[in-house]
Amino acid sequence: MFDLTQYMEERRRQVHAVLSRCVPDDGEHPAILHQAMRYSLFNGGKRFRPLLCMASAEAVGGSVEPALQVAAALECLHTYSLIHDDLPAMDDDDLRRGRPTLHKQFGEANAILAGDSLLTLAFELLADTPHGGRLCLELARAAGSRGLAGGQFEDLASEGGTPDREQLVRIHTNKTGKLISASCRMGGIVAQATSSDLDALDEYGRSVGLAFQIVDDILNITSDADTLGKSVGSDAAREKVTYAALVGVEAARSEAESLVDKAVDRVTQLHGTTDPLKALARYVVERAY
Amino acid sequence: MFDLTQYMEERRRQVHAVLSRCVPDDGEHPAILHQAMRYSLFNGGKRFRPLLCMASAEAVGGSVEPALQVAAALECLHTYSLIHDDLPAMDDDDLRRGRPTLHKQFGEANAILAGDSLLTLAFELLADTPHGGRLCLELARAAGSRGLAGGQFEDLASEGGTPDREQLVRIHTNKTGKLISASCRMGGIVAQATSSDLDALDEYGRSVGLAFQIVDDILNITSDADTLGKSVGSDAAREKVTYAALVGVEAARSEAESLVDKAVDRVTQLHGTTDPLKALARYVVERAY
Repeated sequence: MFDLTQYMEERRRQVHAVLSRCVPDDGEHPAILHQAMRYSLFNGGKRFRPLLCMASAEAVGGSVEPALQVAAALECLHTYSLIHDDLPAMDDDDLRRGRPTLHKQFGEANAILAGDSLLTLAFELLADTPHGGRLCLELARAAGSRGLAGGQFEDLASEGGTPDREQLVRIHTNKTGKLISASCRMGGIVAQATSSDLDALDEYGRSVGLAFQIVDDILNITSDADTLGKSVGSDAAREKVTYAALVGVEAARSEAESLVDKAVDRVTQLHGTTDPLKALARYVVERAY
Repeated sequence: MFDLTQYMEERRRQVHAVLSRCVPDDGEHPAILHQAMRYSLFNGGKRFRPLLCMASAEAVGGSVEPALQVAAALECLHTYSLIHDDLPAMDDDDLRRGRPTLHKQFGEANAILAGDSLLTLAFELLADTPHGGRLCLELARAAGSRGLAGGQFEDLASEGGTPDREQLVRIHTNKTGKLISASCRMGGIVAQATSSDLDALDEYGRSVGLAFQIVDDILNITSDADTLGKSVGSDAAREKVTYAALVGVEAARSEAESLVDKAVDRVTQLHGTTDPLKALARYVVERAY
């Protein structure tokens, strides 16, 4: 019987070690900027994208070690996006995982620069691997104006309005989905996956990414502040229309479940160790209850 | 006799064409974000880093075409850094090259996201070339917490204080110098330069980069607002100590000149067309008069 909790703990420890090595704690110049980067990197994040990356490498028969630096890069990218999203000019959030957001703790200029530095570090870590060019291309396409940054733009632009379902799906896909499926594909690339294996990982990632965001929306409606570590109902307070608000919590849960079933089904054919990928998909939807 | 003006015009046109293709003008989604990126990209910039990149490729015997996309990436990176430096939380500038800064024109959130998107696009353009991994590594090292972003951090941190000469050189090196020497090296890499040619380009770039920043400081002291397109004496107003203020305008000019002589001398040995590189170095110091 596969033990997901143990798996996640071990993999998180491995990623932590790489991240800690990459962002110095030893006063290396400029020390305060590096401290700011570490403050956000080591803030109890679930490391979901790194886990998907490593589990994807394993699912196509690769080993974990070559995927570690890529996993760390994905966490740098994700952390940058959270730091910038929290800024006063953006979502203006004071809390992140129960602690003051970076700009609250280190000031706005340092938060902008720490985010910029983490975004850049993500590419540095990828570039410094055997498949550097291909991995950088994957990440850049997922993160730029046609991906994560564009999704955040449209998310902000949709506030106060009434986006339709098509627009909501596009925001989710760009803001969350593309990085999640890129995480899976990049794990596959490191493990030298075939093109049809990469397709399977990509489809797995797209389903899981959409489920992930739906569950986040559900939690924003149903959770209490202690569990969520941020202001509850903040989406509603900002009149941000979410999928769960649009179709209702029950229908959203059921949609997330069928997406996860589809994802699990899609990776069954892979010849490596697929238990971690399957368990991670189910873990996503379990958070919704 | 080499005609630098004509050379610059032609090369700028070529870079413009690549940039215009990469950031769509056709309403591609999200259109406003792409408009914001273009607003800053096409703002009459000198394209100094792209010019250095292309001239470096030519200096080691390569042709210009393969360097064009790399040159465009360098301009994206540079433009991102200007956009973020201008933000209210950073240098808080209202004008850039005589026009409203991006956050004044498109709002702060869009300026942050346009900067993020241009930083990401820089890596996308590099990754999508034959030497993608190596080029991304060069750029990331020049742009991250140990380069441009770290230099901007220390520049902000030094305001109101009295940094010594060592600290000033480090700020210049990180904030400006590393990207300029990376521009030269990256042009060399595209043209398959030998390792000793890359060393020559690197040293050329380091001297020119330092001269460039010294001249900028001189202009900040001596220029009028029309010429500079931004508030004059803004460094002094912010009590930002610059090299020129520390040693005086005359001594600063003479230092810039000897740096440029050194740069020109260093690339004389290269076997390609070195006239453009030499003329670009001299162009840097001519601005100081």
